Parts: sequence; structure tokens; C-alpha cells
Amino acid sequence: MAPAPLCDLAAPDRCCLNTATLGHREPIAVIARRVAAAGFGWITPWRREIDERQPARDAEAIRAAGLRARSYCRTAYLAHASESARRQAADDNRRALDAAAALGARELIAVVGGLADGSRDVDGSRAQILRGLEDLMPAIESTGVAIALEPLHPFYAADRSLLSTIAQAQAWCETLDPKGRYFGVAIDAYHVWWDPLLAPSIAGAGPRIRAFHVSDWLRHTQEPLLDRGMMGDGVVDLKGLRTMVEAAGFDGPVEVEIFSRDQWWKEDPDVVLHTCRERLQAVC
Amino acid sequence: MAPAPLCDLAAPDRCCLNTATLGHREPIAVIARRVAAAGFGWITPWRREIDERQPARDAEAIRAAGLRARSYCRTAYLAHASESARRQAADDNRRALDAAAALGARELIAVVGGLADGSRDVDGSRAQILRGLEDLMPAIESTGVAIALEPLHPFYAADRSLLSTIAQAQAWCETLDPKGRYFGVAIDAYHVWWDPLLAPSIAGAGPRIRAFHVSDWLRHTQEPLLDRGMMGDGVVDLKGLRTMVEAAGFDGPVEVEIFSRDQWWKEDPDVVLHTCRERLQAVC
Repeated sequence: MAPAPLCDLAAPDRCCLNTATLGHREPIAVIARRVAAAGFGWITPWRREIDERQPARDAEAIRAAGLRARSYCRTAYLAHASESARRQAADDNRRALDAAAALGARELIAVVGGLADGSRDVDGSRAQILRGLEDLMPAIESTGVAIALEPLHPFYAADRSLLSTIAQAQAWCETLDPKGRYFGVAIDAYHVWWDPLLAPSIAGAGPRIRAFHVSDWLRHTQEPLLDRGMMGDGVVDLKGLRTMVEAAGFDGPVEVEIFSRDQWWKEDPDVVLHTCRERLQAVC
Repeated sequence: MAPAPLCDLAAPDRCCLNTATLGHREPIAVIARRVAAAGFGWITPWRREIDERQPARDAEAIRAAGLRARSYCRTAYLAHASESARRQAADDNRRALDAAAALGARELIAVVGGLADGSRDVDGSRAQILRGLEDLMPAIESTGVAIALEPLHPFYAADRSLLSTIAQAQAWCETLDPKGRYFGVAIDAYHVWWDPLLAPSIAGAGPRIRAFHVSDWLRHTQEPLLDRGMMGDGVVDLKGLRTMVEAAGFDGPVEVEIFSRDQWWKEDPDVVLHTCRERLQAVC
């Protein structure tokens, strides 16, 4: 077996668990204890697991387990047919930034949304998304929580994300935040592995890279939302991808995020976590 | 209702029917008569409909219906784990070029294939694909049939096409055929509508564009292989896309290609064709 290209992933502070991997089946305090026991040093929770009216309690549960919160998932979609829906999304995103700050997370992951309802106007919806992100600047400054723009697989362009490539995310960052203080990029192997411009895009994103998510693309997947594979079960060269991301300057943890309704979400959470740790070592 | 941005599509020689739209349920002679009666001037058949041992007979059936064959679908995949499988694909592709010539088709559509079996090596598989295309040059020259490289939606990258964007197809054309005689690009709205670089890529492809396919992306599609929508039922701005393609210099027919197992393939073929013609007029 070839040696890992960089440091191995034995150290807890190189490993993050995105709670979507466990299917949101338990309270965050229980999840956090399992995740810590499995040898992860970081956790990225989802909003549904956090009581945003009193996030300090959940923050304390994460700390008590011995973990740190890394990122927070995720923004509300930003393109909408009505001004009131856009305002509602903006309010929601500000609440998410507040909660992220309370958790001590470094960034809120942005899944920017697809076309506005009933619209075929890709450029117009993208412009709405950019305005929605720009409007968050005061909340970003006051909370100290950055936004990590996550390009999603083009399969989701219509209904989940008109942000589809790393190069596009990087260009949006440059537009929104030329100095690189508030906006960065989240790179998820599942979403970007196919990109013909993958290597130059990762190199170009450089210090903007704020998160690196892993799972695997199953060769004959039929269902790209909830049928992600465990690392090593699919076609993605994860070691190669991590090498590129780290060569670009990223030195944060590798974050496991697996949406798998019919396999891993039905499995015992401790088995899932144990498998994740093994695969992080073996193939990431 | 806004006027069509360019000429309307009433003339048969502006309209092509890709036989996949009808679900391959009838012999080519029957299909051709229906297609001609519905007001299409061109047809693009698939290999399963043509007897490649004696393609002259099917060519005559197409001519007798009053149609011309436009393109021919499609190449065998080009990346394989074994040399013998690569040779087999090359032989198969030469047979397809011969049959395309007998039909009088202008180009063979290339669906280049995904990763070689068992491989995670995207670059290596792409290199195999390029070599496989290059090896077809003598057959292209002798038959006079070009190859139209069709970028497929990134959803298919693993198992059907590591060629995912128009810019990538254009770059491959430049590598394979700097003078632009043998290799061109097929643009299918379904595959490319999401691309952040769509407008510059289409402009850049310019005279390389050899085919323009339409269908529609259903907003909440769950199954990206056989769940394409009829033009107008989804999110793609087809008029806008046609305007770009024609501004880049393409003056060929608009070709309808709809894979729709659960809806249009169950419908009466004449109803499908009538609907296609109406939608070509209304939304393309």
C-alpha cells in the first residue's frame, strides 16, 4: 500500500465530522460524545440540531464532549421570486451567523440556492444570490463568522445551487470581498471531482479554501442527493484531491460528510464513525 | 408573447428529430414516415435502429420518407481497463463511421465514456479517450464523416462521459484537429445549461458547433438519465440558448432529443412529434 501523501489522519485535530453523516437521528450532545469517542477533534453541526434561541447550551455540550465546532451548515437559499421571501432568507441567514458565533464555528457554509421559483433566468438568479450574500456583510463583520461558499454538483443547479464550480466560487469571493476576510470556499470532493478545471481551480482558490469535505461518488449512483458513498467505495481519488487542497495552502481538518439514506443512515452511529475513521486513514 | 429572437422554426429544414425522443419502439422506416409527416426535415437515428451490415436499405427508407440524416448516435466508450476492450471500441467506432457515411450523416456523435472500469484516474482515462479519438482519424478521413464531441452533464462523469463542458470539448478539438476539419462540438441544452462559463464557451466554440440539441431540465428531476422534460416544461431558457448558439455561427437545425421513459416514451409517437413541433415554435 502506498504511504499517505502527507501527514496521516491519526490526530483528532485533522479530522472533522459533519453531523449529516449520521442522519440527524440524535440530539447534538449525544452525537458529540460519539464523535469525540471515535477520535474526531472537530464537529460541523447542522441548524436542525441546534436550538438557535439558546445556542450556548449546545455549544457547551460540544465543548464538554471535547470537540470544537468547525463550520455550521447552512444558509437559506438566496434567489426568490418575491422581495419578502428574500428578506426572510436574509433574516434567517443572520440568525445562522449568530448561532455559528455562539458555537464558536469559524464559518457558515453557504448553499446558495437555485433558480428563483418559476424563473428560467440563470443570470438574474445568480445576481440575486450575490446581492443576498453582499447584504450579509454587516452581520459577518459583527459576528466574526465568515461565509464559505460551497459549489454544489451541477445536478443541483435548478433547485439547490447555481454555484457549481470552484472557479465560480473563487470569482464570487473576489467580487464580494477582494481582501479575502469574509468569504471563502468550501470544497466538497463529491461535488467537484469531475471538474475539467479542478487542479487549476483549487490552486487558484489558495488561501480562500476554508473547508474540505469528503465522501465518495458511487460509480452507478442513481440518486445524487442521498446516495453518497463512504470514502473508498466510489470513484474519487481522495488522496489526490487532498494533496491538491493542501498544496494550495489548506491545513484544516478533513471533514466527512455523507448523505446516505439507505445505507449509512440506517447503520449504528458508532459503526459509521468507526468506518469513517478507518477510511480517513486508508484512502483520504 | 415575445417574438422568436431569430427565424421561426416553421421550416422543416430547421427542425431535426433525434429518434431517442420516440423511445426506439418502431423500425426506422416507420419512424421516418412519422417524423416527416410531423414537419421535420432532418432525422438523427441511433445505431440500434440501423442494420449496419446493410445500412443502404435504412438510408433509402429515410430518403423515401423525405428526410435527410443529420447526425448518427453514437460512439462506443473509449476508456477501458484492457487493451483488447480499447481495440474492440475502436473497431466498433469505425463501423459506426461507415454506417454514418452510408446514411449520409454529417457527423457521428461522440459520447466518450467515463472512467475505465475499476479506475479512479480521471486524467488517465481522459488521456485514453483522447488517444481513442485520435486513432479514428484515418476512418474519419476515409468516410468523410466528422466526430461531434458531446459534453455530457457532470452527473455522468463516472460512467458515461469524462467530457463535461463545452470549453473542454473545444480544447479537445483544438488538440485533436487544429484546422477544424474532423472534430466539432455537439451542444445539448440539457447537459450544459448550468455552466457558469456557458456564454463564453459557446462563443469560443464558434464554427466548431455541429449540432444543437434541445429538451428541458425538470426542476425537481430525480433521475437524470431517462427523465428529461419536453421543451417548455423545465427551467432551461431555450430561446436564449439558441440565440447564443446561432450568434456563434451555427445555422443547422434544432434537434429534439428527449429521453423520457415514464412520460413521452409511453405516449403515442405522433402526439410526441406534434408536441415537439409546437414547443419548437413556442419556446425554442
